[in-house]
Amino acid sequence: MISTQRRHIMPTTTTASSAPQSTDGQGHPVFMQPCTAVKLSDNGDILFKMKANEDASVTVSIGNDHNSQITIPMQNLHNGIFEASFSGCTLTGPQKLVFRVNGQETLNPFAPLWFHANSLSNYIELPDPETDTLIAPRKDIPHGAVTHEFYYSRTYQEFMSSTVYTPPGFKNGKEYPVLYLFHEVAENKTAWTDASRMNYLLDNLIADGKCEPLIVVENDCTVMLDYHDRPDWFENYSQLEHFLIQDCVPFIEDKYHTKTGKWSRAIAGIGLGAVQAGYIGMRNTDIFGNIGLFTAFWISAAFHAEGKEDPFYTAAEYIGRHPEVIKVFFRSEGDLDIHFKGIEAENNLLSELGIDKIPGYLFKVYHQTHNWGSYRRSLRDFVPLLFHE
Amino acid sequence: MISTQRRHIMPTTTTASSAPQSTDGQGHPVFMQPCTAVKLSDNGDILFKMKANEDASVTVSIGNDHNSQITIPMQNLHNGIFEASFSGCTLTGPQKLVFRVNGQETLNPFAPLWFHANSLSNYIELPDPETDTLIAPRKDIPHGAVTHEFYYSRTYQEFMSSTVYTPPGFKNGKEYPVLYLFHEVAENKTAWTDASRMNYLLDNLIADGKCEPLIVVENDCTVMLDYHDRPDWFENYSQLEHFLIQDCVPFIEDKYHTKTGKWSRAIAGIGLGAVQAGYIGMRNTDIFGNIGLFTAFWISAAFHAEGKEDPFYTAAEYIGRHPEVIKVFFRSEGDLDIHFKGIEAENNLLSELGIDKIPGYLFKVYHQTHNWGSYRRSLRDFVPLLFHE
Repeated sequence: MISTQRRHIMPTTTTASSAPQSTDGQGHPVFMQPCTAVKLSDNGDILFKMKANEDASVTVSIGNDHNSQITIPMQNLHNGIFEASFSGCTLTGPQKLVFRVNGQETLNPFAPLWFHANSLSNYIELPDPETDTLIAPRKDIPHGAVTHEFYYSRTYQEFMSSTVYTPPGFKNGKEYPVLYLFHEVAENKTAWTDASRMNYLLDNLIADGKCEPLIVVENDCTVMLDYHDRPDWFENYSQLEHFLIQDCVPFIEDKYHTKTGKWSRAIAGIGLGAVQAGYIGMRNTDIFGNIGLFTAFWISAAFHAEGKEDPFYTAAEYIGRHPEVIKVFFRSEGDLDIHFKGIEAENNLLSELGIDKIPGYLFKVYHQTHNWGSYRRSLRDFVPLLFHE
Repeated sequence: MISTQRRHIMPTTTTASSAPQSTDGQGHPVFMQPCTAVKLSDNGDILFKMKANEDASVTVSIGNDHNSQITIPMQNLHNGIFEASFSGCTLTGPQKLVFRVNGQETLNPFAPLWFHANSLSNYIELPDPETDTLIAPRKDIPHGAVTHEFYYSRTYQEFMSSTVYTPPGFKNGKEYPVLYLFHEVAENKTAWTDASRMNYLLDNLIADGKCEPLIVVENDCTVMLDYHDRPDWFENYSQLEHFLIQDCVPFIEDKYHTKTGKWSRAIAGIGLGAVQAGYIGMRNTDIFGNIGLFTAFWISAAFHAEGKEDPFYTAAEYIGRHPEVIKVFFRSEGDLDIHFKGIEAENNLLSELGIDKIPGYLFKVYHQTHNWGSYRRSLRDFVPLLFHE
């Protein structure tokens, strides 16, 4: 018989004044650092902070397009804490920040970080009325989780790490379908959760009954070679295909007890990641029954115009003759995307091959640049199409 | 009937030359950035890289103790890629790196990052013969996973994020015991996985049959107030206790279908985290049956010497009279730790109260400073004691 310990009664309500710093001030529980150095004020101004030596010259630049970044000087208000306020910003969604001290680029340890343009860098999430509600964590619903899995890859002969979203209330006993989601060139497996807040977007769609609960798997997919080096490029696509199908899919399906079979698998990506997802998905329609190509200029059109045979065309031509092998074939593009002008040739090619006759074919155009604004809208419109029995 | 797609046969063996960058070059798949800027060469030299403007002056300093950091000048070898090599380093384990450009501290975006001393900073993992094998991911065994959970806390009235280690082959159907593990002051919930490589340490102990498979949960536990402000300090311990018991434990036990009951729960921490774990664990012996206080100078001894009543003493005194309420009571300290001199008074107090008579009582001394060397050894020696039926 264990006696019960006497202790002071703890209060049943407490103030929220002293929660350990666990969010970025915008409701997004970040993974590593508190983010107190960037803040949106109620009137829409952006407030920046940065610590440097007192005599330093400090600036912050904002914008994903480095040709049109806006640079704001920061003032040493006290003891080397530099501050700046910026009004009237018209940018939307996640935007890169570059802090410079005496002209040297530096990372701000208290601003959000993403892996972007082949390097860790700072960014800020700016209002986008069309998607703000969609990516905000809600207090009234349960939330999914983000897991880092480590496993040895026989294909690459080294350890690989996959980032796995599991839906709210995930139970390993229940079987879920799986989306394999590829990042854009020069990003990595953390992009869809860190910068895009995909986890909240899916939590919200699932809570509202707009998509089936699903597992999403991200990998590091950019082969770290010059991607204009075409022969290597294709060679490495083949290696990525081998890794995904031989190493990753079996690992995920075993560990997470997922649904199996092509109709319970989807493959999608952004930009170069869409080209990779298209290459693998279209060549393996016995494994993947659903394909999403987000904001991608489908390079095969260019190949085809030159009269060359290429694996994309071969695969697309096969699907055109067998439209029943794909249930959902989703494409999207931003009309302000630098690749938008290539879309017409691609549309013509797909039409010639009959791919636009697939019942689950959908092509969406967003009034967006090549940016997270397009990517999020693409995911929002793609996942509701998937995995209906 | 779905026809099978013709495609080129993929090679069954591939070269490993073009794996996407997914590790830090030391076998640790990091969560966000590739870590090519620090490297240990075969002869033990440390190689550093850092990009800066060509005319900059660049240095790197190494060492967790900022009074004895070693500073190494870096040379611009080409196009602003600065390099340095350092021979004969006698430091061991994870050590802080500070890169400076023209005297300004900066983060290196391609070196490992941890949250340390209340800020994101760079570090390097240096050889420690006693633990190197223990923290190295092995190719011949399955690996655990690290999950970020998000949930709304009624105690703090905001979202909290917990980091959850699940053991190799984790299946939600099977029931595991749980260790709630607290970080040191000025660190956060990522410390035990990012810097300490706890996940590999546990993978290896489990694979070798040295500890029971278990789940480990980390939270952000440092209340962001001056911790010399004693009244607030205790007030916030109470809030942390309320969060852990009312919000976190029920969430984890429901979502992960864990074993329940005090003998399947342990609570432990480092330094201030040990004081927090001790405060909560010793006051709630009906909830936690196992306690680990790693490298902590147990402040209650000082209280007691001043003749003051305090919650630590009250709880310890209760346990002394009811030693059957705790199965494992583990303490550790480094003999080079600045707090080591306080240990004797604490040992005397625990002896007076009879706590050292608990059958599962163990006090370990390591030849270490207050550092990850001690923390890892403490975890290595603590977890094998836990959760035997």
